Amino acid sequence: MERTLVEDTINKIGETITLKGWVNTKRDHSKIVFIDLRDRTGLIQIVGTGDLLGSLKLEDVVSIEGLVKARPEKMINPDLTTGTVEIEALKLAVLSHSAELPIDMSKETLEVELPTLLDYRSLSFRHPKIQAIFKVQAVVIDAFRRALMEKDFLEFQAPSIINAVPEGGSEVFKVDYFDHEAYLSQSPQLYKSLLTTAFERVFSVNHIFRAEPSATTRHLTEAVSLDAEFNFIESVDEVLDMEEYVVRYIFDEVQQHCQKELALFNATIPLMSEKFPIIKLRDAQEIIFERTGRDCRTEKDLAPDDEREICAWAKEEKGSDLVFVSHFLTKKKPFYCYPDPADPEYALSVDLLCRGVEWSSGGQRLNDYETILKNVHEWGLKEEDVALYLQAFKFGSPPLGGFALGAERITMYILGLKNVREASMFPRDMERIDLRLSSAK
Amino acid sequence: MERTLVEDTINKIGETITLKGWVNTKRDHSKIVFIDLRDRTGLIQIVGTGDLLGSLKLEDVVSIEGLVKARPEKMINPDLTTGTVEIEALKLAVLSHSAELPIDMSKETLEVELPTLLDYRSLSFRHPKIQAIFKVQAVVIDAFRRALMEKDFLEFQAPSIINAVPEGGSEVFKVDYFDHEAYLSQSPQLYKSLLTTAFERVFSVNHIFRAEPSATTRHLTEAVSLDAEFNFIESVDEVLDMEEYVVRYIFDEVQQHCQKELALFNATIPLMSEKFPIIKLRDAQEIIFERTGRDCRTEKDLAPDDEREICAWAKEEKGSDLVFVSHFLTKKKPFYCYPDPADPEYALSVDLLCRGVEWSSGGQRLNDYETILKNVHEWGLKEEDVALYLQAFKFGSPPLGGFALGAERITMYILGLKNVREASMFPRDMERIDLRLSSAK
Repeated sequence: MERTLVEDTINKIGETITLKGWVNTKRDHSKIVFIDLRDRTGLIQIVGTGDLLGSLKLEDVVSIEGLVKARPEKMINPDLTTGTVEIEALKLAVLSHSAELPIDMSKETLEVELPTLLDYRSLSFRHPKIQAIFKVQAVVIDAFRRALMEKDFLEFQAPSIINAVPEGGSEVFKVDYFDHEAYLSQSPQLYKSLLTTAFERVFSVNHIFRAEPSATTRHLTEAVSLDAEFNFIESVDEVLDMEEYVVRYIFDEVQQHCQKELALFNATIPLMSEKFPIIKLRDAQEIIFERTGRDCRTEKDLAPDDEREICAWAKEEKGSDLVFVSHFLTKKKPFYCYPDPADPEYALSVDLLCRGVEWSSGGQRLNDYETILKNVHEWGLKEEDVALYLQAFKFGSPPLGGFALGAERITMYILGLKNVREASMFPRDMERIDLRLSSAK
Repeated sequence: MERTLVEDTINKIGETITLKGWVNTKRDHSKIVFIDLRDRTGLIQIVGTGDLLGSLKLEDVVSIEGLVKARPEKMINPDLTTGTVEIEALKLAVLSHSAELPIDMSKETLEVELPTLLDYRSLSFRHPKIQAIFKVQAVVIDAFRRALMEKDFLEFQAPSIINAVPEGGSEVFKVDYFDHEAYLSQSPQLYKSLLTTAFERVFSVNHIFRAEPSATTRHLTEAVSLDAEFNFIESVDEVLDMEEYVVRYIFDEVQQHCQKELALFNATIPLMSEKFPIIKLRDAQEIIFERTGRDCRTEKDLAPDDEREICAWAKEEKGSDLVFVSHFLTKKKPFYCYPDPADPEYALSVDLLCRGVEWSSGGQRLNDYETILKNVHEWGLKEEDVALYLQAFKFGSPPLGGFALGAERITMYILGLKNVREASMFPRDMERIDLRLSSAK
């Protein structure tokens, strides 16, 4: 008999169907046994005799033929999408037996510490709340792409292996590349910028690599970057407008397609005002000083506390969880950043903050070859290390800009996760690649 | 004035518009100058006085205000999408000057050798025929995703950094990972399989890395793999059906969205019969022997000549450019391959060949934990190197299978390119990472 998916059962009352899935929970009253069966579409209650279902263990994979019955009004389970029906089991086939579970999978939230959860990553993926994280992430990533395709951006594949680290190499991974030394890319920045000189509008979903020897809750050594870049802009405002459009598009899609997932985390889409507020770094620091007495007014960047404070300000004063912060110090930014003509000490570089943390960085880039070349030397870089980049701008390039968003961070801060590792299926850090490294070799 | 895109000019006859783009070609008759202007949507002819346009150089970036005029019947250029109109230039602003071009970009096909083309990669991207390659590739990749999303597959992000090389390490890149040795993934096979035990249906567009010390026309050290895997299958036939569905979906999308690009290469979508033919390895070898006298009947795999021959057979006898070849030797395949119960010496592993070359490999995988564990030992692997994989199957897993397609190969063989490097924006091989490595350091 053709398989019926769990979510489709509610339309099949009175029919005999075949369900396939995993034994998610089991309540054994000896003569009568209740099972919650799980497939990729959800959970459903199955009831059967002890003779038929009694020997089943958690996570066994089964095919169950059964009759779909409407539940009496008072037995309806409002917490379950399929709570209006239950299945009376008629026939059972076990497709695969499970070993005894090393962790308790039955709780609404997995009550294990993160390291244990990751030690049992293959198993923890089966928990509905863990699955919800990656459903949301897939929607975020696809929404990013859809948003940009609708604006005529071309998708490109950013390389991971690179031959030089023009922006400084302390946090870069080295690769043995035949007889040469190569590196893992920290950002597709130069590639996406050079591509605009041919394709105008490009985006990429790509992996970036950072050898940060720290174990914060916000950093991974391999992360998914959502990159966009385009040219023929009149000003940096067009870059911010495009980024705002993309972020709103992402939120709309999550709101539309992830109701169930958001509810599991008691999460809501970030608050948005009619237009994301924008504030210059120095003005932000002034506000922080006024609000807290903490004087960061000469710092080159916002510290984590500052990010939280300026987000609090944006929410209270502007009704927005999101806020652009612009005008970082030109000399502290990469060589390609565009100084504000009105005040060249500060660059037209812009971070997007949300819920207390940086989600994105972007801005306008230099497009004049001679200026770029001068900066390459001033920043102490080697021309040969940015050869393809220079080549692109040597032969005519319009004004350009772009931005990059972190896929795991967005997922984390939409759902209110405590650690970015929860938002990566296979998080890598200095202590773990799948297994804990200390015990791996 | 708002920018008008080149492709939209044909609907604006009689209007004064502003175009922005690059000077693609220039024919200077002194008092009158013809320019082909290029933007991301195509080329258009602009005519103006020598005074206005005479000083322009190839690849200068310009903003031109001009009047859209219908061309007289006999002046219509059928080779140009905008061949029914031309622009009479009224005002000119140069947004960016180009240096003199080191290669001739004016020919319909870039007449330079591949190494030179790659040395000037940033520039060669501007050639319409090069752009067409990556337009097709973007459509291929997006079609792969759309096809699978429509079948309820979840997108996942396969990691690039791995901690062990269970399938043998001769062609793997090593990464310095803090105090440990890590590697670049050759395939997301184990990750996608283990994910099915939780998500049922998954796919990934991911980068794979092969340290092949060879310089063939078909191999890259970093390539884009299109991976799909799903479970609750009744037999390997479901895997082939899904793969055929995906490949047809890709071809449909390319046919629909890449007419202009296919025409540039004089390319056609591969020939398809009602159902892709399928043939067992030993039967294929028998046919090759009959057709050519070449005896490969005891070989474990098809050599390049054999692949071409069996594709020729499929085209002549079955009316199909595509052919599945199944039943490779179990012992020569990875530990997770599913032996045919009817003849366990051969596995339910299946390659898809098209136009003389392998496009894909796939098949059914083992799902029984004890059998997998036995094979891990028989194949000489360490349990700890496949720990997460074993964990997934230990706790109940239904029958599964899947396949992987190479994005560059598909692009290459749809368009009839001679070298796979042409189908990679930034091809990496043992001699090149952007620059030629010999000259890089």
